[in-house]
Amino acid sequence: MSDKSLIELLNWRYATKKMDPAKEVPQEKLDAILEAIRLAPTSSGTQPFEVIVVTNQDVREEIRKVGHDQSPITDCSHLLVFAAWDNYTDDRIDSVTKLNVAARGEIPLLLQYYENLKSLYVPREAEVNYAHAARQAYIALGFALIAAAEQGVDSTPMEGFDPESVDTILGLKDRGLRSVVLLPLGYRQPEGDWLLPMAKVRKPRETMISRVD
Amino acid sequence: MSDKSLIELLNWRYATKKMDPAKEVPQEKLDAILEAIRLAPTSSGTQPFEVIVVTNQDVREEIRKVGHDQSPITDCSHLLVFAAWDNYTDDRIDSVTKLNVAARGEIPLLLQYYENLKSLYVPREAEVNYAHAARQAYIALGFALIAAAEQGVDSTPMEGFDPESVDTILGLKDRGLRSVVLLPLGYRQPEGDWLLPMAKVRKPRETMISRVD
Repeated sequence: MSDKSLIELLNWRYATKKMDPAKEVPQEKLDAILEAIRLAPTSSGTQPFEVIVVTNQDVREEIRKVGHDQSPITDCSHLLVFAAWDNYTDDRIDSVTKLNVAARGEIPLLLQYYENLKSLYVPREAEVNYAHAARQAYIALGFALIAAAEQGVDSTPMEGFDPESVDTILGLKDRGLRSVVLLPLGYRQPEGDWLLPMAKVRKPRETMISRVD
Repeated sequence: MSDKSLIELLNWRYATKKMDPAKEVPQEKLDAILEAIRLAPTSSGTQPFEVIVVTNQDVREEIRKVGHDQSPITDCSHLLVFAAWDNYTDDRIDSVTKLNVAARGEIPLLLQYYENLKSLYVPREAEVNYAHAARQAYIALGFALIAAAEQGVDSTPMEGFDPESVDTILGLKDRGLRSVVLLPLGYRQPEGDWLLPMAKVRKPRETMISRVD
């Protein structure tokens, strides 16, 4: 792994505000980040989201227009778009069951588990299911942030964009997906980045961690 | 850091179904996991959640009763409860602004930023704000899962519990918090764990990653 500790990596990373458009993330580093996303755990193993890797510059300019004109969207090497399932459906859960059977065999307990999951999830409102799916994407976002830091790659988690416009630009609605968060990957351009010289701000531990002993 | 690569760590970890109640996570390992949670990035730096570390066995037994009787809740060394803010308020955002000023000085752009944030967030429905806060907690959950693996500590992310009951047990409502996910930390008891011998199941990359080049 990196010769830095995880805590060192987390102090090294920051939400990069200015990326160097001339620098490309090598394929093997991108692959390592995508693999961490793929390995992220999710509720009942449903992995209810997809990631769209956008390098097309015209498309990124369109996204930047509906993303508060944030420059990393176009200056990054690869723009990751995390898009959650808009709903849970029988088909989607069945495909998870099939994957389980392929890897583990026909285990009655697992088959029953996913049948129960369908009867629990599918009748719920789409909005409730989407909200649940979106949370799972955020676990993978966390994994991607750490994987990028391990690879020495900068990243910028971004919620400041119009999701419906991004869905239209990328044709996500027809695929039953809704964009939830963007993650440009690239390399910081230190001279142009107003955030880099500033201290990292985090709450003292005692204000966010408490104990019941 | 660990001598394992991140990908090796992610393949080592799994949602531990049976923990050894006799094994305790040392304080320095717990601290490293909590520090990763504290360093997790969140939307506008609000860190809109808290983590309650529960070791009290009576309290954990109460939680287990409303947590589908899942044994890691009581067999773990430390039970982490991630609890998101139930709403964004002026006071809560002002406290974030204060933290920024203390670390970075009175920067007009930042002061304006958080004033704007208040006018955007505070009028929204509590449920919308809670949903947003809960997503941020899931980034930190991702960080905690990796930090635990780096420390050789097992963990079990759990959504299968009744949040309102857990809120009551821990008195979270009065603190303006709502429990969103549990994370028992401890050590696997291999002989009692049905999941450990099973293959990890993840979608093939091509079914969840696509490109727009």
